[in-house]
Amino acid sequence: MRLLIVGGSDAGISAALRAREVAPDTEVTVVVADSFPNYSICGLPFYLSGEVLDWRNLAHRTVEEIERKGIKLLLDHTAHAIDPAHKFVTVTNRAGHNRILAYDRLVIATGAMPSKPPFEGNNLPGVHLLHSMADAFRMQQHLTHKPPHSAVIVGAGYIGLEIADALVQRGVPHVTLVVRSESVLRTTLSPSMAQVVEDELRRHGITVAKGIAVESVRARGSRLAISGTQGYEATTDLVLLAVGLRPSTELAQTAGVITGTQGAICVNREMATNVPDIYAAGDCAETWHRLLNKPTYLPLGTTAHKQGRIAGENAVGGRRQFAGSLGTQVVKVFDLAVARTGLREEDARGAGFDPLSHELRVWDHKAYYPGARELCVRVTGDRNTGRLLGAQIIGHWRSEVAKRIDSFATALFHDVHVEEMNDIDLSYAPPFSSPWDPVQMSAQAWVIAYQNSSKKENTL
Amino acid sequence: MRLLIVGGSDAGISAALRAREVAPDTEVTVVVADSFPNYSICGLPFYLSGEVLDWRNLAHRTVEEIERKGIKLLLDHTAHAIDPAHKFVTVTNRAGHNRILAYDRLVIATGAMPSKPPFEGNNLPGVHLLHSMADAFRMQQHLTHKPPHSAVIVGAGYIGLEIADALVQRGVPHVTLVVRSESVLRTTLSPSMAQVVEDELRRHGITVAKGIAVESVRARGSRLAISGTQGYEATTDLVLLAVGLRPSTELAQTAGVITGTQGAICVNREMATNVPDIYAAGDCAETWHRLLNKPTYLPLGTTAHKQGRIAGENAVGGRRQFAGSLGTQVVKVFDLAVARTGLREEDARGAGFDPLSHELRVWDHKAYYPGARELCVRVTGDRNTGRLLGAQIIGHWRSEVAKRIDSFATALFHDVHVEEMNDIDLSYAPPFSSPWDPVQMSAQAWVIAYQNSSKKENTL
Repeated sequence: MRLLIVGGSDAGISAALRAREVAPDTEVTVVVADSFPNYSICGLPFYLSGEVLDWRNLAHRTVEEIERKGIKLLLDHTAHAIDPAHKFVTVTNRAGHNRILAYDRLVIATGAMPSKPPFEGNNLPGVHLLHSMADAFRMQQHLTHKPPHSAVIVGAGYIGLEIADALVQRGVPHVTLVVRSESVLRTTLSPSMAQVVEDELRRHGITVAKGIAVESVRARGSRLAISGTQGYEATTDLVLLAVGLRPSTELAQTAGVITGTQGAICVNREMATNVPDIYAAGDCAETWHRLLNKPTYLPLGTTAHKQGRIAGENAVGGRRQFAGSLGTQVVKVFDLAVARTGLREEDARGAGFDPLSHELRVWDHKAYYPGARELCVRVTGDRNTGRLLGAQIIGHWRSEVAKRIDSFATALFHDVHVEEMNDIDLSYAPPFSSPWDPVQMSAQAWVIAYQNSSKKENTL
Repeated sequence: MRLLIVGGSDAGISAALRAREVAPDTEVTVVVADSFPNYSICGLPFYLSGEVLDWRNLAHRTVEEIERKGIKLLLDHTAHAIDPAHKFVTVTNRAGHNRILAYDRLVIATGAMPSKPPFEGNNLPGVHLLHSMADAFRMQQHLTHKPPHSAVIVGAGYIGLEIADALVQRGVPHVTLVVRSESVLRTTLSPSMAQVVEDELRRHGITVAKGIAVESVRARGSRLAISGTQGYEATTDLVLLAVGLRPSTELAQTAGVITGTQGAICVNREMATNVPDIYAAGDCAETWHRLLNKPTYLPLGTTAHKQGRIAGENAVGGRRQFAGSLGTQVVKVFDLAVARTGLREEDARGAGFDPLSHELRVWDHKAYYPGARELCVRVTGDRNTGRLLGAQIIGHWRSEVAKRIDSFATALFHDVHVEEMNDIDLSYAPPFSSPWDPVQMSAQAWVIAYQNSSKKENTL
C-alpha cells in the first residue's frame, strides 16, 4: 500500500506517523514544500522574541527522526495536480523538474496561508506575514539588521498578541495593535474578558487602536505610512499582518475535491473527502465542531494533529472518527495565560442555545499559601437545560490556567451540566488549588446566577 | 426546619452553607468542638514551615463570614449523645454545663482522629500528632521554643511528607522518615513512582528508613530514644506520628448509627445513615468509590466538602447523590508535585480488573520554550477493555501537574477508554504544553504498550 501525503506540517506528519504505527508495511511518502518538515509554527513568536535562540529547535522532530520511522520525505517539492482517476500526483522540485507520484491513498494536508487584507501596499518591503519558516527568517532578518523603532501589528488574534509580546521582549520601543473590531481576541473571548487582556497589553506599553480597518500602507522614506478608517494615520518601521488564515486548497481542487466553510475542504468525520481514496486534514480542512454539531473552520495545531492522526489511520484501513473540536485554546500574553473552550454566549446564541454567562474572580490556590493570584473565570451554560456550553479563564501564566481550561474541556467533551462540575473529584493541596477548584467555584457561582435568573423570570 | 450539624470543619460547614443556600429559611446550628470552625487542616504544614505566618489566615472563612450566612455557631461545645427517638443531641460546653439541642435533621460531621500506633511512649512530651489547631499550636511552640536539632516522622503518607518538607524549611538539620512499608506514599503511588519522590526527599537531606515499625519511644534526658524493628535505634528531639486517620464515630454510635469500612459511618449515596433523619459526611463517613463501585474510607478535604454539600442539600429535602471519589490527590514535596487519580495496578487487580500500566517521561511543554521540565506519567488501563483506570503524575510543582491529573480525573469520571484521551480537545501553546498534551502522549504510549502486549499474548 502506497500512502502519499502532501504537506509536511502537523497534520501531514501526524498522518504519516500514525499510518506507520498501525500498518507498519505501508510505504509512506510525504511531499514537503520547503525544507522544514514538522516545524512548530506555534513556536515562531518565541523565536522572534529571542526566547528560542536556535530555530532548529522548533522542529517537533528532526528529518532523521521522521525517516527512522520509515517515512520517506520529499523536501522542497510542490504538488500541483492530482489525477484521481489514475491516482497520481504531479510534483515539481526547486529546479522545476516534474515528477509523478502514484498513490493508493492520498492525504491532503496543505495547510493554510495567512490572509492578506487587500489594501494598497500589502506587499511592500517591511510588511510581513508570519506562517512559514521563510516568513520567520525574513522577519528575523528585519529585526536583527534594521531594528525597528516602532511596529504595527494588524490584527489582534492570538498570533497578533504573541508577536506584540515578542516585539516588546525584543526591545521594540513602540508597538501598536490595530484592530478592526472593538476588542482584542474577538473570536476567542467575550468582550469583558478581552478587556482584561487589553489592560495587560497597555500595562506593557502597547497601544491598542480599535475599530480601525487599515486602508493602505505606503513607503515614506525608509519608513511605512499606514492609513486606516476613522482617520487613523501612523508612521512605522515594520508592519505585520495577522488577520487570520485561509485554507490552501488549490491542489485539492485539481482533483475535484469539494470545499465548504470558509473555503476549507469538506471532509466527513473519518477525514475522507468526496473523492475516493483522498483524505484531508489540518488547516486546509473543515473542523467538525462537537458542540455545534456541524463543520466549522478552526485551524489549530492541536486539531491538525488529531485530524492527521485519524486521516493516517483511516487511509490504511481504519474507521476512526474525528470526535470534534471544542475550540479549546490558550495563549500567553506577557504575564497572563488566556484560555477558552466551548462556546461563548454569542456563539451559543447563534447555535440556538439560550446562554447565560457568569464571571467569577477567585484565587488560583488557597490565599494563605504564598503567591496566590486571582483568576477570572467565565462560565457559559444553557438556561433551558443547565448544560455547560463553554468557559474562559484568564490568570497569571503560572496559575495552571491552561490545564484548568482542560478540566472544562474534558467535561464539555462528555456533555455535562454545569452543576455536575462539582461532582468531579479534582485534586487539591493548598499550593495548587482549593478544596473546590476554581473551576468548581465558578460552576457553583453560575448555578446560583442561573437559579436567581429563573426565579426572576418566574416572578415576572 | 431545624438542621443541627455536629462538626465545624470542611464537611460540617459545607453542609451548613448548602442548606442555607437551597433552603434559606432553615435554622442551622453547627456544634464546634473548638474555637476554630472551618479551618484548613491541609494548611497546617505550611503554618509550621513558616510559609503561613498568621494561623488566622488558615480559616477558609471567618466566624463572621459564616454567621453572616445565617448559620449559628456553637463554639467550644462537645456533642456526646444523640437521642434519635426524641431527636435531640446533648452537648457540653467547656465549663461542663450540659445543654440539649433539638433537631429535625442532623448531620454528623465529626471528622477523624490521627491514628496513634500503640507503642510505649506514644504519649510522651515531644511526641506530636497533627490534626487540629491545638496540635499545630503545640508543635509550633516546640519548634519555636526548643528548636529541634533532629526530628523523626513516623509515616510517609502525604502529611508525613509535607511535614518533612516543612521541618527542612524551618531549618531542622536532621529529619528522618520512618516508614513501615517498603516505599513512601504507599497508598498513593506505585513503587516506581514512589522512588522518584524518595529521591527528592534524599536530595533535600532527609533520611528515609523503610520497612521499620516503631516499637517504643523513651525519654533519654531531654531527648527521645526510638526503637523499631530491624534493630532500628535513633535519638531525636521531636517525633511526629503521621500514620493515618481513624474516623470519629463515638457520637454516631450513641444513636445506633452503623459503621463499616475501617470503622467509618455507613452512608448511602445520599449521605443518609441507617437512622432516620441523620446524615453523615466527611472524614467520619465512608466514601463511595466511583471506580470500585463500593464504599471505601478515603478521608480527604475535597471529599469532605462534596459530601457535606450533599448532606446539607439532602437534609433540607434534596435528593442529590454523591457521585463518588476517584481518590484524586496531589501533594507538594519540595520542588515536586505528586498526583494521582483512580486505581493503581495493585488496586485494580484487587477489584477484578486486568491492569496494565505504562510509564512515560515527557516534557511538560515544548522543549524549545525556556524552562521545560520532565514529567513522569504512569497510566493504568484495563487489558480486557482498554478502559482507563488511573494515572499518576510526578513533575516540578510549576509544571501544571495538579491540573493535569484533573484532566485524567475528569475523563475517568466519565468512564473512558485510554485511547479516547486523544480525542479530547485540550489546550495548547508552547509555554504550556505540546500539541498532544503529556496526558495524551502518555495515553498513546499506553495504547502501544497494550497492543504490543496483546500481540505477544497472541503469539504465545
